[in-house]
Amino acid sequence: MAPDRRPDRHPDGRVVVALDAMGGDRAPGEIVAGAVAAVREVGCDILLVGRAAEIRAELPDGIPDGIHLLDASEVIEMAEEPAGAVRAKRDSSIVRAAEAVRDGRAHAFVGAGNTGATMAASLLRFGRLRGVARPAIAVPLPLALSERKLLLVDGGATTDPEPDWLVQWAKLGRAYATVRYGNPAPSVGLLSNGEEPGKGDDLRKAVFPLLEDSVTGFVGNVEGRDLSRPTADVLVTDGFTGNVALKTLEGGMLAMAGLVFTVLDEPEFADLAGPLRLRLLEAAADFLPDNTGGALLLGVQGICVISHGSSSAAAIVNAVRVAVQCVEADVVAAQQAAVERVPA
Amino acid sequence: MAPDRRPDRHPDGRVVVALDAMGGDRAPGEIVAGAVAAVREVGCDILLVGRAAEIRAELPDGIPDGIHLLDASEVIEMAEEPAGAVRAKRDSSIVRAAEAVRDGRAHAFVGAGNTGATMAASLLRFGRLRGVARPAIAVPLPLALSERKLLLVDGGATTDPEPDWLVQWAKLGRAYATVRYGNPAPSVGLLSNGEEPGKGDDLRKAVFPLLEDSVTGFVGNVEGRDLSRPTADVLVTDGFTGNVALKTLEGGMLAMAGLVFTVLDEPEFADLAGPLRLRLLEAAADFLPDNTGGALLLGVQGICVISHGSSSAAAIVNAVRVAVQCVEADVVAAQQAAVERVPA
Repeated sequence: MAPDRRPDRHPDGRVVVALDAMGGDRAPGEIVAGAVAAVREVGCDILLVGRAAEIRAELPDGIPDGIHLLDASEVIEMAEEPAGAVRAKRDSSIVRAAEAVRDGRAHAFVGAGNTGATMAASLLRFGRLRGVARPAIAVPLPLALSERKLLLVDGGATTDPEPDWLVQWAKLGRAYATVRYGNPAPSVGLLSNGEEPGKGDDLRKAVFPLLEDSVTGFVGNVEGRDLSRPTADVLVTDGFTGNVALKTLEGGMLAMAGLVFTVLDEPEFADLAGPLRLRLLEAAADFLPDNTGGALLLGVQGICVISHGSSSAAAIVNAVRVAVQCVEADVVAAQQAAVERVPA
Repeated sequence: MAPDRRPDRHPDGRVVVALDAMGGDRAPGEIVAGAVAAVREVGCDILLVGRAAEIRAELPDGIPDGIHLLDASEVIEMAEEPAGAVRAKRDSSIVRAAEAVRDGRAHAFVGAGNTGATMAASLLRFGRLRGVARPAIAVPLPLALSERKLLLVDGGATTDPEPDWLVQWAKLGRAYATVRYGNPAPSVGLLSNGEEPGKGDDLRKAVFPLLEDSVTGFVGNVEGRDLSRPTADVLVTDGFTGNVALKTLEGGMLAMAGLVFTVLDEPEFADLAGPLRLRLLEAAADFLPDNTGGALLLGVQGICVISHGSSSAAAIVNAVRVAVQCVEADVVAAQQAAVERVPA
């Protein structure tokens, strides 16, 4: 990592987060509101990147202390083809925000827009870490009624990986689990179609011995159920399977929650439905996408935190908080060390 | 299909189901109890395959009408490596049950034991359908508060498929959706990491145009969420991804249900917790593994229905019911016609 991007190089010691003001279904309103709240609640500065006039319109009382603006004339839409959009729209908020980190104007990039474009711009502008072939996205998985969190790596950055890329991701994921959750010795599982060592498709069978040989904390194959229970802290998979699993998990939990709430609408349960609904929402709060804090792009020479497409102001605050935590713990250096370290 | 396996060839017109009496965590007790109940409730005959002495011990009042015994001295355990076990244990209940179907002594095979061995024995003893390269397993997916059911194909029979195998599975899945759910025109989705036509890993990108060209009812890419909502009736995927998705779905729904039931234990909700629990269990009954009726092995010249490993007697009755339905609708002929039909 270039020294000018290290947090201790910033003039007044405050962390600066570049935030894509145009990204997400609720941009720019919720994003700008999230920026203002993050300055207050997280205690960092925010560089709002996007169409300055539209951003100013969301701040009728002027630009608050701690908020800075970086004008960018273009917007990459949610449905655009990522790589092409990043190439074509060089003055887009996503590209400019990634460049702000590359150029040392900000310590981290937070975006809720086109996920593929946010990843592609970060990869292209930050560059890869030494020894990392492709990036991966680390998606936090809450567990019901537990403080413990898991990380799924890769949640969708890279499909069709080579076996050794998953080894790199396992190491990066461990480093990040330590930074984000304070876990000094995260365990790693290989997401497969059975627990026995011989299980898996061709990719998994090739990856398993590599993980055994070179990843500390490897516990073997894990299954889809282990996205919902604490078998391993880091679950490694290819970006295709990871994406399918994440959306399957979300869909299944929503379906079950929907079933419960529909039953609570029945007249028989009217007396308790109100308080029970509130209590259930509270107990399930960790699962609301606004509360997960976003996903980190692993394997690149800079910090990029991706929040979900319908992020509210609260989601932005949580994602900014994760980004600042990553800056303060120097998660990039921790990742670089993890892939360069030779296991004992 | 050989004529002697057709249902109309059976002497007295009753369907005979070969049931692996030794298969599953609760065998032989629950399996034998399920057989007795199935004769009464489904109206078929059952050929119980396994160690005759152990089966007889479960029937202290003698062998009821409609129950027949086929002695098999060996048992393939749940954790055994499937292909090796099928080769080595030629007198196992699984191999003998598959042979009973092949030899025309039974119309269908139902097993709750080692899934891999049940599939391997059926594949080896029945043989493949013409035009089918590899089998796939069709797993029923209930939807919350809906009568509509989906089928996931392949739920785990074949990892690392060639692109055209998924096309065959799509056709087989459609034929089966028609038999099992009476759906005259099932839609087909390709499980991918995004809805846009360009999404997917290399396999998905190769399969997509083939499905477009040759599968009626193809609606394009679907996502993990579409395992829990009615976007497509048949979801086609490779057996690795399918297995991960199924277990992820199960884990997520169980986690959410567990959270709800834990909250209901709180003193504040004691008044309604009892009736609400019952009502929730009733509303979610379709999701209980005992109630899905089992999964059908597609692409083979015979009927093999696989029930889950902890099957109760009720699960066995449901699986036998599905098997009989498959016999009566001649699902093997329907599958053969589907893969041989050239689309208009």
